[in-house]
This record gives sequence, structure tokens and C-alpha cells, in this order.
Amino acid sequence: MSLRVGIVGGGQLARMMIAPAVELGLDVRVLAEQPGMSAAIAATAVGDYRDLETVRAFARDVDVITFDHEHVPQDVLRALVADGVAVHPGPDALFFAQDKLRMRTKLAELGMPQPVWAAISDAAGLQAFIDDNGGRAVVKTPRGGYDGKGVRVVSAADEAADWIDALEPGGQLLAEELVDFTRELAQQVARTPSGATRAYPVVETVQRGGVCAEVIAPAPRAGDRLIDLAEQIGVAIADGLGVTGMLAVELFETVDERILINELAMRPHNSGHWSQDGAVTGQFEQHLRAVLDLPLGETAPRAPWTVMVNILGGPADDTLESRIPLALAAHPAVKVHTYGKAPRPGRKVGHVNVSGVDLDAVVSDARGAAAHFEG
Amino acid sequence: MSLRVGIVGGGQLARMMIAPAVELGLDVRVLAEQPGMSAAIAATAVGDYRDLETVRAFARDVDVITFDHEHVPQDVLRALVADGVAVHPGPDALFFAQDKLRMRTKLAELGMPQPVWAAISDAAGLQAFIDDNGGRAVVKTPRGGYDGKGVRVVSAADEAADWIDALEPGGQLLAEELVDFTRELAQQVARTPSGATRAYPVVETVQRGGVCAEVIAPAPRAGDRLIDLAEQIGVAIADGLGVTGMLAVELFETVDERILINELAMRPHNSGHWSQDGAVTGQFEQHLRAVLDLPLGETAPRAPWTVMVNILGGPADDTLESRIPLALAAHPAVKVHTYGKAPRPGRKVGHVNVSGVDLDAVVSDARGAAAHFEG
Repeated sequence: MSLRVGIVGGGQLARMMIAPAVELGLDVRVLAEQPGMSAAIAATAVGDYRDLETVRAFARDVDVITFDHEHVPQDVLRALVADGVAVHPGPDALFFAQDKLRMRTKLAELGMPQPVWAAISDAAGLQAFIDDNGGRAVVKTPRGGYDGKGVRVVSAADEAADWIDALEPGGQLLAEELVDFTRELAQQVARTPSGATRAYPVVETVQRGGVCAEVIAPAPRAGDRLIDLAEQIGVAIADGLGVTGMLAVELFETVDERILINELAMRPHNSGHWSQDGAVTGQFEQHLRAVLDLPLGETAPRAPWTVMVNILGGPADDTLESRIPLALAAHPAVKVHTYGKAPRPGRKVGHVNVSGVDLDAVVSDARGAAAHFEG
Repeated sequence: MSLRVGIVGGGQLARMMIAPAVELGLDVRVLAEQPGMSAAIAATAVGDYRDLETVRAFARDVDVITFDHEHVPQDVLRALVADGVAVHPGPDALFFAQDKLRMRTKLAELGMPQPVWAAISDAAGLQAFIDDNGGRAVVKTPRGGYDGKGVRVVSAADEAADWIDALEPGGQLLAEELVDFTRELAQQVARTPSGATRAYPVVETVQRGGVCAEVIAPAPRAGDRLIDLAEQIGVAIADGLGVTGMLAVELFETVDERILINELAMRPHNSGHWSQDGAVTGQFEQHLRAVLDLPLGETAPRAPWTVMVNILGGPADDTLESRIPLALAAHPAVKVHTYGKAPRPGRKVGHVNVSGVDLDAVVSDARGAAAHFEG
């Protein structure tokens, strides 16, 4: 009988697990938030992932539960584990992904390189942090933020007054130094329940407006020291936090050539989409292999360079598909990945991957193809 | 709205169109012969492809009808076209794929290089053909054969007496010279309804017991003359027969370095499975692009060598999936493709692809991985 994988969440990450699941012969099932989502073709249930009985019913007939996102509540996760369901990543690992303050605390315990940070309870504390860190700080709500949401750069405590006022008793914000970075990198690592790990080559990520816009794999101008350090950090976090499945570690590279940890994601991640076409084993296949405790696949790049460019917002005429003919005609080597989502400003509705030998040509090809789908 | 592709037939070729269809954002639907087939995840209907009303109902809401196989009857195909349905490949092209005598006749008209052949109506005619061609002949039933079925090598007419006796009035068999070939090759070409074509590099195929066992892409020891000739033959046939979608041309390479056409297939073909992982655009994505009249993708290899090895028969313990852990552990760079079919002796239940720089190492890796799933 086929191995059965249940994915909670019907977004594009679940959608992109479907192709490798079909090829590997896995029985893939999705609990979607609503009908017609990105992963609809594999949706066997529709319901609220915060409702224990909904998730419990979905989990009854699968070999493992994994996720399209990190938002399933701890009490739901722990009840599944108590039921004897294999949940990967598990609640102990997701605990750190769900709260940035807990994540910073844990990474500090592990001796990982991080920006200066502090837990902030009130305006005075935030102002002191700002004063101690060059007159500016990055303030984050510990929970619920993504793609730049829940993140604010401030130069005075009153610029975060609304968040401070909204704190519940005992609640805290996270303040971080505004890192003087030269670029952003990302390290992907897969880890199985048995503890096997495989690291991907570190990549460079380019953000625009707090959202990932492009990824270059592997990261250009990365020497052995940087490559090894990024891999060591990724593996140490995967091991230290007990991550199962794919882990993405977003990193700052500083002007003084240090590497500092920015954010974590315990799932396939935008910074790893290049691997679908650019690595021997794509991150979506690798995630499935990892959560099923199957042997992990080779992570080597399949070409000197692979560039991923997100399709943001989408076409004004509202149909991504209408742009496909011109995009494919002008860019025959580009791999297009669509998410089955209605376009709207700033929304990620797909991405393109291009591989090749000449980085400038690859970047140009990828950007050109993505541009066909926007505006 | 997404482009809608209806695939008649629920076998592994339909199954392998699903992954690229999801990524391209196509709405893919399958008319399966029965529940639980290879392409079940995309099956929206179950029924008999020989029944016009069944196929007509399936075709009502799609932008194009294409196929997992070439067995849909001409009257069904022509009724769909009369209804205004886009059918690719169309009945005029499939006419030649459905009858090997018609195919030989048409290729002769096009001046294509073929083995010596003749239409045989009786035992005397067959014996004369045998006597004229060195005392042996390959006899084929014009319709219904595949994977070595409906093909017999004979040295006397009475060895085909059962087929001759079974001929209906006016019926004929196909006799072909037994070609003294050094190896078998295959040429894939994609062609759109608009007439655009893209050829893949010619590959070497290794048959065992009349069934494709391995494919090496590109074909080793193939000079520019051979590569160009194979491509010219493939494109000439695609154009000459009006093929839309993928065309595979199986070829003999003779001891005197000629190339002779063996068989045709108007669909993605076993000899092109390597392209899923080894070419910029895999044949299943290319077939979808072709039948939708979208621009065709780049066909260049992604590595110096890619080797495909079929998984035949399957494991004695009856579950392909039970062998996956050991196979993946020993062969981390191998891409496994399963068909969701119950194993039985000689049945193709999956294949593996491996890419790399050293051909001997790639062959060894692919054969080793496939062996994990057999016996």
C-alpha cells in the first residue's frame, strides 16, 4: 500500500508537494482551508486547521501529518501526538517557529550567531534598546508575522506605541538591532525523524518590500568558509530544535563578513523553490522524504546557476494563464510554476526558475519571463 | 481561467502529465477506464473510451482532448472533431498510428527509410517474402500490438498460420525484413497544431524480450550525421503525418550505418521518459504545451548523460513502496517514478532516471536502483 501523507493547509507549498508525491507513488491528501485553493487537486477535506476534531478526523488514515504552514495551534498538534499520529515537524520544533522570542532564546542557548535582540515589555524598554543600538531598532510581533507583516523599523519607541498598547499582560515584543548587512542568504537543511540531515548549498535572496523577489543558487561570491559556516548553522539549528522536514534559515551577511540569523521556517520555503528544477532533489520531494523518514536525496545543484524570480501581483487582466503563451515563446528554457491563486497587488502567484552557465544571462532570462506575468 | 486538458485513458502516461500540468496551472482531467488507475488523482470520469457518448460527455468542458494511448476508435475521434472539439493528435494522424500497414504505406510515400516490407494476404505471399528476404521475416498484426505483442519472427509461413487463418476477408498482415541492426535508437519530436516543432536529441534504447528496458540519452557514439538524420526523419514524419503532441520514432541503426524506421508512437513514449529529469523540458510537459498550441520548450539535455531504466514486474512481496527505503538509501541521486500499478511479471510498474557526467557510473547507479524494486 502507498505511504499516505496528510498535508494541513491547501496553499502553494502543499500544491508543490503534489508533483513529487505522484512520482514517488505517495498517497497525498490535503486538508484545505476552503475549496478551490492552490492544492485543490489533492484536497480530500476542507476545514479549519485550528479545530482539533477536524484535524483529528483528517489525520485518522494517514502515515504522517505535515504542513503547508506553521500556524496549527500547539494544543491541536499535541493532541495528535497523544493520539499516536506521526506529526512532522512536531510541536516541540514548531513551538520555536511559532514565536520569534522563543526562537531567539533557543538560538542563544545553542550559541548561534544572532543580531543583538531583547524582549520588550514597555515603551521605556524599547527606547533603551533603540538608544543602545545606534538609534534604530527592528520591532517584531512574536507571532503571526510573515512576508514583512508584523515587522517595523523604528527610531523612537512611540513608533511602536500601538503594538505596545495592544500587549496582553505579560506579553512582549521582540526588538532586534538593525543589521548593517551587505546581502541576505538562506540555508536549507532537510532532517528526518531518525536524525539524518542533508544541506543544500547556501543561496542569495533578494527582498523587495519585505517580500522575497529573487533567489540565486548557489550564492555568488561564496567561499568555502561561508558555505561551510552556513551549512553548520543550518544543521545545528535542525538538530538543536529537533526539526523534521525542511528547515530554511534566513541569514544576514554583514559588512564585516559575519553571518547572523534572521528568521526560520520549518517547511519548504520560497528561498528553496530554485531546487525544484535546479537541484537533484527538489525541496518538496525532500520534505516528503524527510517527514516519512525515508532516505534523503542528493542536494547538489544540477547547473552552475539557477535563478528563481517570484511572480508578484500578477496580470492586470486577472488571468496568469493568459500571459503564458508570450512568456513561453520568449523564454523557452524557463520553468513556470503557478499557484492557482487569483492575482492581487503584492501577492505571490507563481515563480519561474531558470538554470544555466552564465549568471547574467540566467538572471535576465528569469526576470524577463516573470515580467510577462506582471502588470 | 485555467486551460483545461482532457486526457482519455488513465494509465501511467496520463499520470506523468499531472505533475507538469499542476506546475503550469493547467486544469487536467482524466477519463479513466476504471477506478484506481495510475492517473486516479486527476480522474474526473470513469468509462469506456470506445463509447462515443462517454467520450463526448467528457470532452464537453475542456479546451483540448489528448490521449494516454492510441486506441480510441476513428469514429469516436471523428465525431468529436465534428462536434468542434480540439483533438490532438487528431484522427488523421492517429489513423497511421493505429494501423502499421497504413503507417508503412504513408512513410513510403514520404520517402522515409524503412525495412523492406509487404502487405501479406495469404501463406503463399508470406512464404515468398521470407524466401526473398534471407529466409526469415518479422510478421506483425497491423493493429493492437505493443511491447512485442502482435509481433513474431518466422522462418516459414506456417509459423504464422494462426494469424493468416484468422484474417478477415480483405485483411492483411505486415511482413518486414529482419533488420541486421547494431542497436536501436529513438527520436522524439514535439509538434503543435500551428506546425512548430522541437526535436529531442536521439537516444539509444535497449530492448529485452520485446520490451524497452533501458534508454541512454543522448545516444552514445552518435556523430553529427546521425543526430541530424534522426532529427530530420522525426520532423519529416511529424509534419508529413500531421502529428500534434509528442511523436516517438523507433529506429534501427544497421551494420552499414543506415537508419530504418521501426515503429511510431503519437504520445509521450517510454523512450522519452529520461527527459522528465534529463531535459530542460520533459516530454510530458512538452506534450501538454504542444496539444494546447502553446510555445514549445527547450529540449536540450540538462546533463552529459541521463539513463532511464524501467522497473519491470515489480517486487515479489507485491508492494513497490516497500522497496523505496533501501533503493533511495543506496541511490540518493536517482529519481524514482512509480505508476501506481500492481506488480506482475513483465509489467512496467515504474522507472528510474539518473543524470551525470560518467556514463558507466550513471548506468550502474540506475540499474542498481531499479534492481531494488524487482524480484
